[in-house]
Amino acid sequence: MAEESQKWVLMVTAQTPTNIAVIKYWGKRDETLILPVNDSISVTLDPEHLCTTTTVSVSPAFDQDRMWLNGKEISLSGGRFQSCLREIRSRATDVHDKEKGIKITKKDWEKLNVHIASYNNFPTAAGLASSAAGFACLVFALAKLMNANEDHSQLSAIARRGSGSACRSLYGGFVKWIMGKDEKGTDSLAVQLADEKHWDELVIVIAVVSSQQKETSSTTGMRDTVETSLLLQHRAKEVVPKRILKMEEAIKNRDFASFAQLACTDSNQFHAVCLDTCPPIFYMNDTSHRIISLVEKWNCAAGTPQVAYTFDAGPNAVLIARNRETAALLVQKLLFCFPPKSDADLNSFVLGDKSILKDAGVESLEAIESLPAPPEIKDPSQRHRGDVSYFICTRPGRGPVVLSDESQFLLNPETGLPK
Amino acid sequence: MAEESQKWVLMVTAQTPTNIAVIKYWGKRDETLILPVNDSISVTLDPEHLCTTTTVSVSPAFDQDRMWLNGKEISLSGGRFQSCLREIRSRATDVHDKEKGIKITKKDWEKLNVHIASYNNFPTAAGLASSAAGFACLVFALAKLMNANEDHSQLSAIARRGSGSACRSLYGGFVKWIMGKDEKGTDSLAVQLADEKHWDELVIVIAVVSSQQKETSSTTGMRDTVETSLLLQHRAKEVVPKRILKMEEAIKNRDFASFAQLACTDSNQFHAVCLDTCPPIFYMNDTSHRIISLVEKWNCAAGTPQVAYTFDAGPNAVLIARNRETAALLVQKLLFCFPPKSDADLNSFVLGDKSILKDAGVESLEAIESLPAPPEIKDPSQRHRGDVSYFICTRPGRGPVVLSDESQFLLNPETGLPK
Repeated sequence: MAEESQKWVLMVTAQTPTNIAVIKYWGKRDETLILPVNDSISVTLDPEHLCTTTTVSVSPAFDQDRMWLNGKEISLSGGRFQSCLREIRSRATDVHDKEKGIKITKKDWEKLNVHIASYNNFPTAAGLASSAAGFACLVFALAKLMNANEDHSQLSAIARRGSGSACRSLYGGFVKWIMGKDEKGTDSLAVQLADEKHWDELVIVIAVVSSQQKETSSTTGMRDTVETSLLLQHRAKEVVPKRILKMEEAIKNRDFASFAQLACTDSNQFHAVCLDTCPPIFYMNDTSHRIISLVEKWNCAAGTPQVAYTFDAGPNAVLIARNRETAALLVQKLLFCFPPKSDADLNSFVLGDKSILKDAGVESLEAIESLPAPPEIKDPSQRHRGDVSYFICTRPGRGPVVLSDESQFLLNPETGLPK
Repeated sequence: MAEESQKWVLMVTAQTPTNIAVIKYWGKRDETLILPVNDSISVTLDPEHLCTTTTVSVSPAFDQDRMWLNGKEISLSGGRFQSCLREIRSRATDVHDKEKGIKITKKDWEKLNVHIASYNNFPTAAGLASSAAGFACLVFALAKLMNANEDHSQLSAIARRGSGSACRSLYGGFVKWIMGKDEKGTDSLAVQLADEKHWDELVIVIAVVSSQQKETSSTTGMRDTVETSLLLQHRAKEVVPKRILKMEEAIKNRDFASFAQLACTDSNQFHAVCLDTCPPIFYMNDTSHRIISLVEKWNCAAGTPQVAYTFDAGPNAVLIARNRETAALLVQKLLFCFPPKSDADLNSFVLGDKSILKDAGVESLEAIESLPAPPEIKDPSQRHRGDVSYFICTRPGRGPVVLSDESQFLLNPETGLPK
């Protein structure tokens, strides 16, 4: 190792996407190792619109492991952080940075402390799987820093120890988390089914739903479901395995009708087992129900699915449109039903890929007010103003990448402290 | 038969209660015979507060079967009415009314037409099982008129052909609908588990929840669930049979903790299979969820259940309090959370057994405004004014009775037409 007195700082910055499950993960068979009761399948969301950026750094000058999330220092003492740090450290290998003249041996890593800074480019509290992107990014960046030569699947098994669904954020496109059989969890990891270019017509619109209700955390919720639901085991053992096979086929064949049917029914069944939990868990609210009803009526009238919906542990709708044309129609319908409050501006009401607004012919707040009523709506006089906080337009996206542009680093290259 | 020219009219008036299932009926194995996929158990509600009154009459002067519901003539051509009429007619026996000098033989009934008038003492559209009370009353009154000497269980099997849950309204107290095995449905009928005096501390508060949403009818809903839910059969075959046995025990032993736990989890599981239906069925709304949350928190804090909740095919909450003291507390909490709109009057906001208001210390609208915030509520500044249309306070009640007071007859004794 280089002289400690030299006070060098070595760092790596990575960017990792979030993901949305289309066959849901709900229920652990092992709480500590985070081993699920069934396989799950997800779509990775474009990191341009939803991602975590994490800078990890190491220096002999650091006297303890520290972490900052969105600029605020947080504790690393939790078991989940410790699991990830321990697992990556144990896989660290020699690092030689010729440019900086730094040599770190496999053994040195045991004594060196790290600084970590992480930032989500979307609201953490919005229920958009920030912990999935976060733990995936932490593990990916640490593995790069410590030269842990594991492939993405092996890293996914480590990220899984931080947050189950994080394992699916190690790949872009379409990803399967295989539940595995090993009781130590070595085979519970993610594999890529297809990359993001495989099915690039899909457009994803997220409705971030206003909610006053305190939600049950997914950790607590799934524990309660495992302990009390009399339907969960039937779902996990009898229903999901067949759906996984069908969903893999649907993705392989870009069969939107099957994809949508499976995604919608599986989302609903996940919420059904939540309701079958004691006490019952309600993640969807009346706004979520209205969005489902709109999509179901549209799909039914069209004769074949135009849009798939899926809801995670919260009221937000993730809507997957079969193509860009359908997405523009979807945005029109959604903006009609859920216009912004009068003090809003369009720029902060529709985020992400705003070009969809042009396709939808909605380039001003006034245009929202004069949209035609969708035929799916019974009472067009009833518009649910303010019930959706904002929309994010996005698409399937790539997996983790290392960022080399220093301006994107979250830690000061000299001090290893937040910029 | 007496001379047709005499134009005599013979009539019977009966009153039949409604009922609320505490182990739910959802799903038919035979659509025409209305045979369920599982047993169910209900509590009969006091007819003083919720009942149907039906007058059935016969006269040689009637040239067709006719029926009036709440004063408005309705068609009897539907299969369900026809099944009930046919089944009762086939069981008719000789009638001899000495006072009026009328003799009707078993054979005469085939040619005679009936007039029927039915009236609910509660809003039909409120989703309070009006069809259950209605068909039970129709069958019970016709059986009396036609001297069909069947016991209540046999009549229940006929009422079942009108509306499945109607069979449970042939008895007071606590009633089990045995699904039966016979493919013709002869053994699918109701039996009384205990009469209403067996457990008379129970107090029932119904919250009639305001809703703009058009609900899926239970007939359509349960058909869709049978056809599409992958959880229903598991519920019907594996879960409900065990719950039925436990619920029978709980009722027998007046074990409120078990009763409440079973009623709540079974209500939630019924709504879970609705959600697992394609397209999903939502009967509960945000107000329903808030009421469940209030009760769950209260029960949890008390260490043992104080109140059970159950929801049928709509957003209304049926709340069963362990005793009158608990019911008074329940009414306080509910009135705090769901006060009436400012233009309401207390008399039309709390219906049924209004004496509970005195126990709750709420004898004016002003008293509602100054109620203390329940500890279960996180944000006491948020009161959901107008979200409950009205409350009905009631209790377990008796089964069908014949009314002899002519002033309660719904048809004119001379003409057989609505009064």
